[in-house]
Amino acid sequence: MRYKVVVAYDGSGYIGWQTQHQKNSVQEAIESVLSLIHCAPITIVGSGRTDRGVHAYGQVFHFDSMMKMTCDKFKYVLNTQLDKSIHILSIEQVEDEFHARFSVVKKEYIYLVSTHTHNPMMRNYMHIERNDISLKRMQETCSIFVGTFDFTSFTSTKIDKRKQRVKTIYKFTVEKQEHIYKFTIVGDGFLRYMVRMLVQTVLMVGMNKLEPVQAFEMLQAKDKDACRHKADACGLYLSKVYYE
Amino acid sequence: MRYKVVVAYDGSGYIGWQTQHQKNSVQEAIESVLSLIHCAPITIVGSGRTDRGVHAYGQVFHFDSMMKMTCDKFKYVLNTQLDKSIHILSIEQVEDEFHARFSVVKKEYIYLVSTHTHNPMMRNYMHIERNDISLKRMQETCSIFVGTFDFTSFTSTKIDKRKQRVKTIYKFTVEKQEHIYKFTIVGDGFLRYMVRMLVQTVLMVGMNKLEPVQAFEMLQAKDKDACRHKADACGLYLSKVYYE
Repeated sequence: MRYKVVVAYDGSGYIGWQTQHQKNSVQEAIESVLSLIHCAPITIVGSGRTDRGVHAYGQVFHFDSMMKMTCDKFKYVLNTQLDKSIHILSIEQVEDEFHARFSVVKKEYIYLVSTHTHNPMMRNYMHIERNDISLKRMQETCSIFVGTFDFTSFTSTKIDKRKQRVKTIYKFTVEKQEHIYKFTIVGDGFLRYMVRMLVQTVLMVGMNKLEPVQAFEMLQAKDKDACRHKADACGLYLSKVYYE
Repeated sequence: MRYKVVVAYDGSGYIGWQTQHQKNSVQEAIESVLSLIHCAPITIVGSGRTDRGVHAYGQVFHFDSMMKMTCDKFKYVLNTQLDKSIHILSIEQVEDEFHARFSVVKKEYIYLVSTHTHNPMMRNYMHIERNDISLKRMQETCSIFVGTFDFTSFTSTKIDKRKQRVKTIYKFTVEKQEHIYKFTIVGDGFLRYMVRMLVQTVLMVGMNKLEPVQAFEMLQAKDKDACRHKADACGLYLSKVYYE
């Protein structure tokens, strides 16, 4: 039986979602509890990676189990055993065809920027910006990126040639709530560092360090060296994964 | 020269404000940076302790220094050297008579309770309550404690006979903002665990596990065994210390 699980986690203390050489990953933390419950090694498949320090309100993974346990019981047992930095939000039984990565239709990320530099409680949960920011200029710039484009300029410089770099952004907005700027971006897929590089580009326009037309030129360049900055990992949240 | 410093800190990773047997305290973290700057041991005096896991938006301490450095420069150097979990908000030069502990007139604490059980990002910053809570019942109960009373019932069971247990509470309120209940309490002084025990008592009335009259009887009992519960440390913030 296949199960689809929605999970929230605080990425501060992890090397990221994906397991790498036995280090402390979110995936490994969940697998070790599932394996304990099953008395056998269980592998989970996530909707995609999140980098070190990136958080999630709605990461999705699937796993297969022969265990006779209700979804509610699975959820309860997992939440009891997992560290408090990881919280299972829901578990449901799905068709065997469901695949947490291959069945993804679109994803939503939230990015938080605070202009309060003096709140140490928020240091792992928001990008801190000391400069003045123009909301209007940022909103104008966000709209440049909505549509279907080759986002080569907004990814890691290590280009994987097998990877499709044309992505569709359905929504990219920014709103202000008190001292917090909240970016929302929805797309059919994202390249590595893409959200953080887009947010930093928009922020630089907001701070008058770039003009909107330069952001547009960056996009058009399709050049991995066009954009050399990215916003901090700690402001990024994988908030929702959509399936058919 | 004596300096008065206002500091914010995330108490999650510390044993509390006060240094105890070389363990990781906020006081020790600040003293070690100040000592480094002065090339000599510097001791700081805080307005009072905060317990393990308790945070501060406005803790105050003083220290003496012969160094020729402007307050702005002191602040800059300290914030550069300190871990990001501690942030110096202001430094000013004060009269030698100023004493961070003895000159305190009143203090304000904030306590945060969230009914969202599924946000791991907030686990170190709010008390999580799964039960339904009545705001009106809580507000009614808070008002019972405003005034001058012997708060023996609301402190640690280790009674220090030398300590004055009559305190004046000037303000004790609770308001709701989305899913967060925010308590504000102002008093001329607080016994150990007093805020957390008062908040938990009010919460229990809010959850219908106690009646307001029982909270009143607890107060009147002046008995260290009358109240045996306290809210989590992580929801508590020392927000302001007032001086003459």
